[in-house]
Amino acid sequence: MKTKAIIFDVNETLLDMQNLENRVNTELGNELAFQVWFSKLLHYSLVENDTENHHDFSQVALATFKMCSNYFGKEYSEEQIKSILKLVKELPAYPEVFEALKILKKDCILIALTNGNQETAEAQLKYAKIDGFFDAIYSVDVVGKFKPHKSTYQKVLSDHQLNASEVLMVAAHGWDIAGAQNAGLKTAFIARPGKSTYPLAKQPDHIAEDLENLTNIII
Amino acid sequence: MKTKAIIFDVNETLLDMQNLENRVNTELGNELAFQVWFSKLLHYSLVENDTENHHDFSQVALATFKMCSNYFGKEYSEEQIKSILKLVKELPAYPEVFEALKILKKDCILIALTNGNQETAEAQLKYAKIDGFFDAIYSVDVVGKFKPHKSTYQKVLSDHQLNASEVLMVAAHGWDIAGAQNAGLKTAFIARPGKSTYPLAKQPDHIAEDLENLTNIII
Repeated sequence: MKTKAIIFDVNETLLDMQNLENRVNTELGNELAFQVWFSKLLHYSLVENDTENHHDFSQVALATFKMCSNYFGKEYSEEQIKSILKLVKELPAYPEVFEALKILKKDCILIALTNGNQETAEAQLKYAKIDGFFDAIYSVDVVGKFKPHKSTYQKVLSDHQLNASEVLMVAAHGWDIAGAQNAGLKTAFIARPGKSTYPLAKQPDHIAEDLENLTNIII
Repeated sequence: MKTKAIIFDVNETLLDMQNLENRVNTELGNELAFQVWFSKLLHYSLVENDTENHHDFSQVALATFKMCSNYFGKEYSEEQIKSILKLVKELPAYPEVFEALKILKKDCILIALTNGNQETAEAQLKYAKIDGFFDAIYSVDVVGKFKPHKSTYQKVLSDHQLNASEVLMVAAHGWDIAGAQNAGLKTAFIARPGKSTYPLAKQPDHIAEDLENLTNIII
């Protein structure tokens, strides 16, 4: 079945979070602070899913940053945390992303689907100068559940009248690949440094080092 | 409404994980390695919930430990990981736990409810010499969803014919408190060192430093 549309995760898949990672690590005084916080952010986003609650990702980010700063023995006002985390809107695309999207755009509908809120997602892709490649930019807020909940992927399919089997989900996260598989999509894992697929999910259809490599595989 | 039953979370609420934390940190060569892994374990347990999948917690622990060891540039066989993680069955209870359970047992049904599997939960409480206090020991595997999914708490209520409002959930984790609240239970947060409630959930009914302190508050 031909790939008609490609859905891209945003953070760490298209955009390099290193600037934000460095900033968080410096603030909290530990080279692993970002990892601890970001895992907690992802965990609590799914706590929201399971407790029939929904705040947008920036609110969960702020709340879990507070929890982490307690852990690291630091204290910040909400304004200070917001000022640190607003760096998420100023992340560069990985070096190969622009050219790869240009090639993929010729044959496929390109869609971004992120746990981030709509305003952040649009600002991020604009800052990275890749917003023009996307036919649609989706925040999960439109369904009130975070990825990898099935409804997030299904919303994109239904809005664009796509069959799951003609859509490829591209992500640098094992959990996103697992969610897309569960919704019936084809999947491509981008093996950014330090990232792994989830050993208890099926293998993705493709594994690529970066988007250039993926383009070579699927075109 | 009188408290008829108390449900306890196990790891970090009753049992001190420090031995396991030290071991994981030594293995992976970083003082925050345990935190990174344990957050990932909790995140992926909820990825399982959201992808309509269920492996037991020890399997998710092993899978996420593999992912983390990749991140830290280490490689382990499954047997080696199992040998590290089996320390979870040899955790001591926090110092005040035995006496507090003895007091609470006089007036209430005491139940343990853990994300861990049944065999691990029973071995843990036996090793810590507190198994005798519990009228029932529950693993979430009985419903096939991890906490904080509502069904995990509801299973205990329904088996024991309890109304949510006469049951108190005791946990050292904001996510567990949020889940119990969502199921209508009363809640007590045990503020173990470094632990915080989740700022986007309601405040718990009680906050105590440890179980002795909780006993003083509720008796």
